[in-house]
Amino acid sequence: MLTGKTIVVIGGDARNIEMMRQLVERDSLVYAVGFEEVDAQIEGVYFSTLENIPANQIDAVILPVSGLDEEGYAESHYAESSPMVQPEFFDTLSENCLVFTGIMTPLLSRLSEKIKIIPLFDRDDVAIYNSIPTAEGALMFAIQHTDFTVHDANVTIIGFGRVGKTLVHTFSALGANVSVCSRNEDELARIFEYHAKPVHIEDLDSSVENCNILVNTVPQLVVQPSTIRSLPLDSLIIDLASKPGGVDFRFAKKRGIKAILAPGLPGMVAPNTAGKILARVIQSVILKQES
Amino acid sequence: MLTGKTIVVIGGDARNIEMMRQLVERDSLVYAVGFEEVDAQIEGVYFSTLENIPANQIDAVILPVSGLDEEGYAESHYAESSPMVQPEFFDTLSENCLVFTGIMTPLLSRLSEKIKIIPLFDRDDVAIYNSIPTAEGALMFAIQHTDFTVHDANVTIIGFGRVGKTLVHTFSALGANVSVCSRNEDELARIFEYHAKPVHIEDLDSSVENCNILVNTVPQLVVQPSTIRSLPLDSLIIDLASKPGGVDFRFAKKRGIKAILAPGLPGMVAPNTAGKILARVIQSVILKQES
Amino acid sequence: MLTGKTIVVIGGDARNIEMMRQLVERDSLVYAVGFEEVDAQIEGVYFSTLENIPANQIDAVILPVSGLDEEGYAESHYAESSPMVQPEFFDTLSENCLVFTGIMTPLLSRLSEKIKIIPLFDRDDVAIYNSIPTAEGALMFAIQHTDFTVHDANVTIIGFGRVGKTLVHTFSALGANVSVCSRNEDELARIFEYHAKPVHIEDLDSSVENCNILVNTVPQLVVQPSTIRSLPLDSLIIDLASKPGGVDFRFAKKRGIKAILAPGLPGMVAPNTAGKILARVIQSVILKQES
Amino acid sequence: MLTGKTIVVIGGDARNIEMMRQLVERDSLVYAVGFEEVDAQIEGVYFSTLENIPANQIDAVILPVSGLDEEGYAESHYAESSPMVQPEFFDTLSENCLVFTGIMTPLLSRLSEKIKIIPLFDRDDVAIYNSIPTAEGALMFAIQHTDFTVHDANVTIIGFGRVGKTLVHTFSALGANVSVCSRNEDELARIFEYHAKPVHIEDLDSSVENCNILVNTVPQLVVQPSTIRSLPLDSLIIDLASKPGGVDFRFAKKRGIKAILAPGLPGMVAPNTAGKILARVIQSVILKQES
Ligand SMILES: NC(=O)c1ccc[n+]([C@@H]2O[C@H](COP(=O)([O-])OP(=O)(O)OC[C@H]3O[C@@H](n4cnc5c(N)ncnc54)[C@H](OP(=O)(O)O)[C@@H]3O)[C@@H](O)[C@H]2O)c1
Ligand SMILES: NC(=O)c1ccc[n+]([C@@H]2O[C@H](COP(=O)([O-])OP(=O)(O)OC[C@H]3O[C@@H](n4cnc5c(N)ncnc54)[C@H](OP(=O)(O)O)[C@@H]3O)[C@@H](O)[C@H]2O)c1
Ligand SMILES: NC(=O)c1ccc[n+]([C@@H]2O[C@H](COP(=O)([O-])OP(=O)(O)OC[C@H]3O[C@@H](n4cnc5c(N)ncnc54)[C@H](OP(=O)(O)O)[C@@H]3O)[C@@H](O)[C@H]2O)c1
Ligand SMILES: NC(=O)c1ccc[n+]([C@@H]2O[C@H](COP(=O)([O-])OP(=O)(O)OC[C@H]3O[C@@H](n4cnc5c(N)ncnc54)[C@H](OP(=O)(O)O)[C@@H]3O)[C@@H](O)[C@H]2O)c1
Repeated sequence: MLTGKTIVVIGGDARNIEMMRQLVERDSLVYAVGFEEVDAQIEGVYFSTLENIPANQIDAVILPVSGLDEEGYAESHYAESSPMVQPEFFDTLSENCLVFTGIMTPLLSRLSEKIKIIPLFDRDDVAIYNSIPTAEGALMFAIQHTDFTVHDANVTIIGFGRVGKTLVHTFSALGANVSVCSRNEDELARIFEYHAKPVHIEDLDSSVENCNILVNTVPQLVVQPSTIRSLPLDSLIIDLASKPGGVDFRFAKKRGIKAILAPGLPGMVAPNTAGKILARVIQSVILKQES
Repeated sequence: MLTGKTIVVIGGDARNIEMMRQLVERDSLVYAVGFEEVDAQIEGVYFSTLENIPANQIDAVILPVSGLDEEGYAESHYAESSPMVQPEFFDTLSENCLVFTGIMTPLLSRLSEKIKIIPLFDRDDVAIYNSIPTAEGALMFAIQHTDFTVHDANVTIIGFGRVGKTLVHTFSALGANVSVCSRNEDELARIFEYHAKPVHIEDLDSSVENCNILVNTVPQLVVQPSTIRSLPLDSLIIDLASKPGGVDFRFAKKRGIKAILAPGLPGMVAPNTAGKILARVIQSVILKQES
Repeated sequence: MLTGKTIVVIGGDARNIEMMRQLVERDSLVYAVGFEEVDAQIEGVYFSTLENIPANQIDAVILPVSGLDEEGYAESHYAESSPMVQPEFFDTLSENCLVFTGIMTPLLSRLSEKIKIIPLFDRDDVAIYNSIPTAEGALMFAIQHTDFTVHDANVTIIGFGRVGKTLVHTFSALGANVSVCSRNEDELARIFEYHAKPVHIEDLDSSVENCNILVNTVPQLVVQPSTIRSLPLDSLIIDLASKPGGVDFRFAKKRGIKAILAPGLPGMVAPNTAGKILARVIQSVILKQES
Repeated sequence: MLTGKTIVVIGGDARNIEMMRQLVERDSLVYAVGFEEVDAQIEGVYFSTLENIPANQIDAVILPVSGLDEEGYAESHYAESSPMVQPEFFDTLSENCLVFTGIMTPLLSRLSEKIKIIPLFDRDDVAIYNSIPTAEGALMFAIQHTDFTVHDANVTIIGFGRVGKTLVHTFSALGANVSVCSRNEDELARIFEYHAKPVHIEDLDSSVENCNILVNTVPQLVVQPSTIRSLPLDSLIIDLASKPGGVDFRFAKKRGIKAILAPGLPGMVAPNTAGKILARVIQSVILKQES
């Protein structure tokens, strides 16, 4: 429980709404800045402005998933104009106050020399929790953008990291025939234990001849023309890797193979769950700092 | 293999395109009537009109999934005007010729006194194969129309017939906590073996208090106001049962609970697979008749 | 709940011990006949003899799984001599008294002309519940009697009835490559949906060339010399079908292939669960009769 | 393929027999030392003695899983007396010759200053592959040593390392309700994704109140009297951790709770698979060294 803690949420999207609900349920005092357009009241949340909050009593500041841009704006989906945070604001915070963001931005990096900033999306646990809605989003696209079932389809997943592992569970569970590409011997052993087909990344091209759905998670250009040329023409490519992605989209288009770049799936298919994840990890960080 | 067989396909949709491809691959001679607007040629398929086909040499006639309407029209998605079949056409067919339709219509019922008509969608095997794309479609809606993950959601499935059984596999596989409602003791035992929670249909209302997603497959009005009143307000209802469905949509709307009627999923999410299913079963019926 | 019900248990094994515990927990009054050698007391169970129980107040009599032999003996694992039930005993029972047995015996068949006897093992729900410990027993043998893992082994299951369905879940779950043999088209469709490989029983022989473990559930001689000759020499056959089983054991031995007849698995690997199953179904029958 | 490679296997058990078969299949030349009592010939393997093998042409030496004892003996299950290896033998090997052992022993540690020794069981990939037969062995014990089914049993697994992860797959697949104890936040997130119940190791004691089967993989005394006191009296403890194990066996006995120490499961339940694993990894190491 977060009894006695004062938390300020500055900007954000649907995820932050659910996050605030969860933080209130954990008994903290929550101020929301930049949420004027939220339809209904959120019980226990005080809509306010930065000036009106006693800065030295704040235990945690929560910035949007996208952090602060160069001018200090915190993007908000629920305000006509996104709130702006002056650098001086951070000077007024107490020494133990924690500042959470989704990702670091240049401005935050510079600020982090003075104050403690926790980029949530860099944490393994957040990445693992988020891999679940990510995999469900990928599955949704696979169902939607093909004219065959995932059941009994040949699915190749590239990368067996935090997202890749969850994808294997998800697609295998639906009855797909899953192959997984990795560059690492130990991971190949684990892929075998998952009862998927391990493929060394060097053998990617020759392994996709009968592939129906290719899902990439490697944030490097791994799906190159040679791979795309090996794919059947009616296959689907889904790229989950962060920009610029790992797929040669230009070549896929030329070849006539449908390729989808699918960023930001957790916020898209499950903002509520994504908000719960953030609240859970924020609580765990605050409590750990204390002890 | 269907070597030496002559098959005439009259009208239909994307499913019938793939079906024809499969029938050609099994070495039959395929005529297509009412497909003038198909973009590309389908190798091995002869586009023609009923008049130009030697009726007495036909081994099988395949009507659209929706059969023939009262005037004899076979609905076609690939022709400006759907082809019409005169009752006399059936008189010219040889005695052993099989006529396939998806469902029976009044006209077909009357015709079936003279000729052998096989309503494919009445067959258990077709219903079971089709339950797979149906379940994937339901899953797609569940991902799309909720703001939480299916993983760890509480899902109640009503009915444990051909579609219900597949739904349990699908949703359990994704990590949902699945309950299944049935009126039958033996099925309750099997539900337990599936590692889902068996609920007697009499206890439906009291069992849905924490339900996040309710999927109905019973073609009777089972989701009545009393059930809907027990559901959380942010839950989702998906009704798969044939018209008029099994959900009191009016009351759900009044209560503010999102309810979706989702008919025709196989043709929608996986026409290609649905076409393969039809070809597979048609072949098996033709070969069985022969032996 | 069975409040107010008087139940007499005559003979039995470890299953009946747990069954009595469960019946007491459901608030019935339980008399045990033929259990003198049970180590500890079972709370709420009265150890007695038939003569000392007011027959006309009995609501249910529970015979051992094996029923009564020709002389009326109820086999007991917990008594020096099994208790004997005189035919006259049944005459003294009230009209509504239910008599439960596992299986019918000739004596019971004759008695059933006068009194209502319920052979529990003929019930679908009991067979389905029992299929779970049966499948676990088969799995245990598969692990124990091979020198390879079930994971990634080729497993063929013959029959897709109550036990067969559960076996597919069990062996697929462990990562085996499962094929299932059936003579029924509809079941072949369901086998496909289970994501196992459907094999028509006519193709059994040609399908087992790389089979590592063959599990039979069909109570007919289906595993004949031609099948056994097709099996690899280091494969294992497990026969679950009731005596005389479905495997030509003599030929398997001659061929040098290990074959195990494994009857009575629920009582062997999970007597406690088996007892719970019996209590659950007995309660449901008693309550149904009442309403 | 290992074409042109000369490999010498000195001592070992059933695993090494299969390993040799696999190495021959990969086209290497295999000498076996200390296998006089093998019943049949192994095609392509030359039974010999160390003196008769041209040491400078050897590409790899494979010692038993248990390595060499202080006097240089390589324990052999297939020889009247285990073969002995003189320290000088290693001097005669060519510079690139690889020496494989299961585990390091003091003698091997000293030798490793001069020659390259590869302790296979220290490798992640070997540990992951071996986790599969290990989990199947644990499952076999769970079925055998309880009188209830694993299906629907409450199972607690301690540790989520290489063996722990596989155990979760195995027990969840059979329909157990699985909880997993770990001390690590990120692993708790992954446990959730596996759809098991994450439990922080600090909460172990309070979490096992309804536990039916407790499986430990942590090689530290984690199952202490306080935990054992919280367990139901009819639960089963299976300890997989290496000697001295992680369970207070003395206290479990005093308390009357059945506790099993189960070492060496891969060699016990699946020597053939274990041998295949070793061959696979040995090949991969040899080929990697070359390139
Ligand atoms: N679309 C969305 O909604 C969404 C959601 C979450 C994450 N993401 C993005 O998805 C990507 C994967 O995320 P993650 O959390 O799974 O990351 P991760 O845990 O770091 O996994 C990345 C995987 O890629 C492999 N890899 C990296 N470079 C490689 C190369 N050159 N060749 C072969 N394999 C290589 C890594 O293997 P090694 O272990 O050998 O390095 C690892 O298995 C990231 O770009 C992330 O931003 C997108
Ligand atoms: N949306 C789509 O795309 C799609 C696709 C396929 C099918 N469908 C439709 O989905 C429905 C189910 O199809 P199916 O193939 O699963 O049918 P099914 O095998 O006949 O299953 C129907 C189930 O409903 C139960 N049931 C019937 N009446 C009931 C009642 N009054 N109370 C409680 N349970 C009752 C049946 O139980 P008993 O066994 O006790 O009778 C059975 O378990 C049909 O309406 C079908 O047309 C829709
Ligand atoms: N070993 C044990 O501990 C144990 C435990 C439980 C049961 N059993 C025994 O296991 C056997 C199976 O039990 P069950 O409950 O699964 O029975 P079941 O539900 O009746 O299933 C039997 C299966 O065998 C098929 N079959 C029957 N005759 C056939 C034939 N001539 N050719 C091909 N298939 C045939 C049936 O197919 P159709 O549907 O086409 O008829 C059905 O799929 C029984 O003998 C039972 O006594 C043993
Ligand atoms: N019985 C058999 O046949 C058999 C077969 C294979 C292996 N084993 C034995 O099984 C054991 C586990 O093997 P493994 O390959 O799974 O090892 P592993 O990958 O190192 O896993 C060990 C796990 O224990 C955790 N752990 C270690 N010390 C801990 C502590 N003090 N408190 C809480 N958690 C702790 C580790 O967590 P962290 O990640 O936080 O350190 C890790 O999750 C070893 O002793 C191995 O020798 C036995």
